[in-house]
Amino acid sequence: MTSGPDEGEEFSLDHVRREGLLPTPGTETVPHDGTGRVAISFTVEDAGGAPASERGVRVPPGVTVFDSASWNGIAIDSTCGGHGTCHKCKVRVEGPSPISRHDVRTFSREQLDAGWRLACLQQATRDLAVVVPPLTTRPKAATVGVGRQVILRPAVQKRYVELSEPDLSDQRPDLRRLLDAIDDLEPRPDLHVLRRLPTVLRSADFKVTAVVVDEVLVDVEPGDTTEQRYAIAFDLGTTTVVATLLDLALGTPVAVASMLNKQQPFGGDVITRISATMMDPDTLPRLQQAAAATLAELTGQVCAEGGVDPGQVYEVAVAGNATMTALVLGIDPEPLGVAPFVMTTEQPPAVLASDLGLAVHPGARVYSFPALGAYVGGDIVAGMLATGMDRDKRTRLFIDVGTNCEIVVSDGSRIVSTAAPAGPAFEGGAIKCGMRAADGAIEVVRLGATAEDAVELGVIGDVEPKGLCGSGLVDAVAELVKVGLLDASGRFVPDEDAKSVAPVLADRLTRIGEERVFVLHRPHPGAPPEDCVVLSQRDVRELQFAKAAISTGWTLLLEELGLEHRDVQQVLMAGSFGSYISPASAVRIGLVPKLPVLRIVSAGNVAGEGAKMALLSVRERAGAAALLQEVTYVELSDRPDFNDRFVDQLGF
Amino acid sequence: MTSGPDEGEEFSLDHVRREGLLPTPGTETVPHDGTGRVAISFTVEDAGGAPASERGVRVPPGVTVFDSASWNGIAIDSTCGGHGTCHKCKVRVEGPSPISRHDVRTFSREQLDAGWRLACLQQATRDLAVVVPPLTTRPKAATVGVGRQVILRPAVQKRYVELSEPDLSDQRPDLRRLLDAIDDLEPRPDLHVLRRLPTVLRSADFKVTAVVVDEVLVDVEPGDTTEQRYAIAFDLGTTTVVATLLDLALGTPVAVASMLNKQQPFGGDVITRISATMMDPDTLPRLQQAAAATLAELTGQVCAEGGVDPGQVYEVAVAGNATMTALVLGIDPEPLGVAPFVMTTEQPPAVLASDLGLAVHPGARVYSFPALGAYVGGDIVAGMLATGMDRDKRTRLFIDVGTNCEIVVSDGSRIVSTAAPAGPAFEGGAIKCGMRAADGAIEVVRLGATAEDAVELGVIGDVEPKGLCGSGLVDAVAELVKVGLLDASGRFVPDEDAKSVAPVLADRLTRIGEERVFVLHRPHPGAPPEDCVVLSQRDVRELQFAKAAISTGWTLLLEELGLEHRDVQQVLMAGSFGSYISPASAVRIGLVPKLPVLRIVSAGNVAGEGAKMALLSVRERAGAAALLQEVTYVELSDRPDFNDRFVDQLGF
Repeated sequence: MTSGPDEGEEFSLDHVRREGLLPTPGTETVPHDGTGRVAISFTVEDAGGAPASERGVRVPPGVTVFDSASWNGIAIDSTCGGHGTCHKCKVRVEGPSPISRHDVRTFSREQLDAGWRLACLQQATRDLAVVVPPLTTRPKAATVGVGRQVILRPAVQKRYVELSEPDLSDQRPDLRRLLDAIDDLEPRPDLHVLRRLPTVLRSADFKVTAVVVDEVLVDVEPGDTTEQRYAIAFDLGTTTVVATLLDLALGTPVAVASMLNKQQPFGGDVITRISATMMDPDTLPRLQQAAAATLAELTGQVCAEGGVDPGQVYEVAVAGNATMTALVLGIDPEPLGVAPFVMTTEQPPAVLASDLGLAVHPGARVYSFPALGAYVGGDIVAGMLATGMDRDKRTRLFIDVGTNCEIVVSDGSRIVSTAAPAGPAFEGGAIKCGMRAADGAIEVVRLGATAEDAVELGVIGDVEPKGLCGSGLVDAVAELVKVGLLDASGRFVPDEDAKSVAPVLADRLTRIGEERVFVLHRPHPGAPPEDCVVLSQRDVRELQFAKAAISTGWTLLLEELGLEHRDVQQVLMAGSFGSYISPASAVRIGLVPKLPVLRIVSAGNVAGEGAKMALLSVRERAGAAALLQEVTYVELSDRPDFNDRFVDQLGF
Repeated sequence: MTSGPDEGEEFSLDHVRREGLLPTPGTETVPHDGTGRVAISFTVEDAGGAPASERGVRVPPGVTVFDSASWNGIAIDSTCGGHGTCHKCKVRVEGPSPISRHDVRTFSREQLDAGWRLACLQQATRDLAVVVPPLTTRPKAATVGVGRQVILRPAVQKRYVELSEPDLSDQRPDLRRLLDAIDDLEPRPDLHVLRRLPTVLRSADFKVTAVVVDEVLVDVEPGDTTEQRYAIAFDLGTTTVVATLLDLALGTPVAVASMLNKQQPFGGDVITRISATMMDPDTLPRLQQAAAATLAELTGQVCAEGGVDPGQVYEVAVAGNATMTALVLGIDPEPLGVAPFVMTTEQPPAVLASDLGLAVHPGARVYSFPALGAYVGGDIVAGMLATGMDRDKRTRLFIDVGTNCEIVVSDGSRIVSTAAPAGPAFEGGAIKCGMRAADGAIEVVRLGATAEDAVELGVIGDVEPKGLCGSGLVDAVAELVKVGLLDASGRFVPDEDAKSVAPVLADRLTRIGEERVFVLHRPHPGAPPEDCVVLSQRDVRELQFAKAAISTGWTLLLEELGLEHRDVQQVLMAGSFGSYISPASAVRIGLVPKLPVLRIVSAGNVAGEGAKMALLSVRERAGAAALLQEVTYVELSDRPDFNDRFVDQLGF
């Protein structure tokens, strides 16, 4: 009967009247700890039914018991992955708790009385104690992100079925016959599948594999193809795009490829690209196509490298900042680029991969990460997922350094985030000899006190230095501060002082025109400063402004949570810049709080890792959606005290 | 929080424990009358709150109170049309009844105690007494089908909103801002809308009209366009396709057009067209395109005639038989054409009108009627809706005569249906001088006893007769039986007897070759029978087989319900043939039960009327879905007694 909305009847009468199920008044209002989270204690039983392990977790109210367990690596039986259709995620909840329509179908009265519930339909609205019976299946898990254990619950599911053939006494429609044979999923069909269904069923003697993506039946394949299911995770960066082909049956990466975003010719950063769309209405479709072409080329590369038929790639996940996400979907980005910085939507709808021109399975869907705001986009939400920002009890600071720098602080209960306009310095922009982190870029700088170790340079590709990338810039400034050639205000010391503070380096402090520069690399003896790789006084100012924007950001976020610098237990530096920067230099220039360097961790490409997690588990997508509710965005640009705080942070 | 399936928490604890809401054990099992329906008595209050009218209705268990009322023309306040989102359809249910999550949000404890519930979420699983408060809105209604009152609840909804502009203190995403302003609908966005949304909002000063189709936001239009909303209902016949352009704001037709189905060159009936797809794999796409081109041409015609911008046509409904529906969607029809006659799906998914090449609004959806079986298709479900087969208390027989004849019998509680292979006789096929009901076709035949009124012919277009269409064929045979020139076995009487039984007609009984024929029209005196419009002995046999197939069908269906011919209170003759046939002739040849002719009603184009109803009210679509559950399909082809019964029915 489909005559009413899905949620029609919500509670059957004969269950309401069972007095044994009714909670004692007041029990449902058990106060939680005031952090905005509820506590769930999970007791996992062993095969004999004895308590084998205990684990306490804290989640935002309203999260399901299934997700609460999943997010913390606690496996509960399930084949549908938490869609409410397989009725296998049985747990025992202590104390009174609501009963869903599916609970009534799944459990006997005695079981309901004893607290048995389906974990995926049981929301934790108060502190709960939950008993998880021993697993009857052995769920696979994968380690991704920053040590995150993800139990495999991919949206892409396959079911091999052998159907009885129709006859006059059994004229069930083909689709009904197929769905009747799949007891744990209830997908709705794509038209394209219906078009093929009669032929495929009959040519395959009614032995077929149903391919389901989330809640859609996207294909019916002849024979048993259950082992072949793949997906591609994209980290859609403004500069670089990385694709990872995943084997969803095993949870392992098969191939990885990266390339520059084909949008580069339209500008190096998001603002330039947004401006380009504002000048010329034809630019948006061209940017859309450029992004799509990038994804398409990478798709071809990873499938070729992995030896995988692109027709067996059934899903794609994209983690990008709000502008990249808008552009790849063809959504006008203009409001992202001008105050008050408004997104079109937090959560882009699922689209077909074929709509983006990707030559994967024609029914493949694209999952786009949701965004918190115009400048805390899907890449950061993916990064929070990959670093477990919402699930780690430590106080942690997450920094993704770039032209726009995103900052997140969690104290283990509350999460706050902001965006700081760092400018292009960290990407080598607006720096005299700045360049992207490519061959020839100085990425490490060490200054010494003797002629032999006066200047040691680490150069990408071990070639002749051509310029300075972001990490080299930070190193250079940090070292110059350390040896005393830069003072705390960021000014090169007078020539007359240089000789005394750093005799072996002083002759490198010279001028190009009026501006003072420090020569990092001289291509040949006697080369004029104009031909050298140098750090200029203006470069130092650029870096000062950039790092001050960032440190003002995290300082204000820490204040928001009532924390001080020393309370931070871990700093996660994300993005490619974060992978190369020297923790010691970052501390020295004040880009991160003054902490022991071991607490400063390069988190790597966390956006890409988050995209992989979303493909490996729909529960992680639910986690991304939950983050939107949980994270408080702090807008810095309209704070009256921002400028004062910024000036405070300018010095080294 | 979107971390779990939609139906997550189903019942809030603090409502479970209110003892006042708990039913007395046993009350939920009030026995109903055993027909498979439950009874609902509606008491509609007047503006003063006094009972103004009482009405009892009977519906299949599980139907919502809102639908039960809607289907019976009882209006209950609602702006969302029963999607569970507007929270306006407040009724008072007597006795204990389940409480939904939305009820808890809508009503106070005292109101819940007093039985207040949202009608669209309250399923009738037992007999109920429901009080409907006076309307606060004045819902519009339209009369369609066979005297059916449809309360307008179109899937296409528009909402004009004036939004506050974003600023740094209100950075809500555009979509959120829009949806926050619409309190009674909760649509999800089309990607195409998101692409336009930022520009439209800003160019229209944030004063826009949201266009929602069912649960999808398909457009955002500048300014207030709420009055402009249109849809097109298609009766997609094998032979003829009829389009009706509807004004959804008023519920009235704006323009109607019809044309031959462009699939005609592939064969006149469904079997020929299915066979064509089996011979050549290229035929299916060509048939799909031919059907789509037919719909597209009619779309252009009705929009031009109605002076309506096709871009304001937001929805399309198609009622066609199972083969026509499969072909227009490009679904392989082969299993429909060969035993065991299996459909691909009962309910085709919604597709975009643009996927069918219709130049209407790019977000417009196509609703296809569900089908009961391969030979009781969406056209018949639409016809049942238009004739109220499930809502009329009388015993009624519905016959849609065609090559395949669909028959439905309802006794006011139960509904049974079947399909009878009548062959092409009624469409003029396999008849010597047969032709389609077009200009020149004899559609009425009266035979008299005097030279003056010997043969009176009604000819379509009032032109020289060229042939005989189905209704003329029935008339001719019925009249020849009446005057005694055909005996009860369907044989022309011997020449020697003809003169005595019908002196003025006897000379028209002649021969073409060996075969005896009756001359209906002689183009000029002395014309040889070969040049005349005649009825041949073989034609009579064709008609006998056709009518025997049909009358065997309804005889067996009546038996299935334990009824006799005389129990039938009304016969509905559907389709264009049904509009032209003479009830007296139909009775005389035994095509319908022997009943007073006033009880035999031409129902007209009920498939097209059903399609209109589906566009005017989503509740009627729910009714169509409910019919799938309610109607029992009786397969005749494997009944051992079918042939005996068929032979019994051959005579006149």
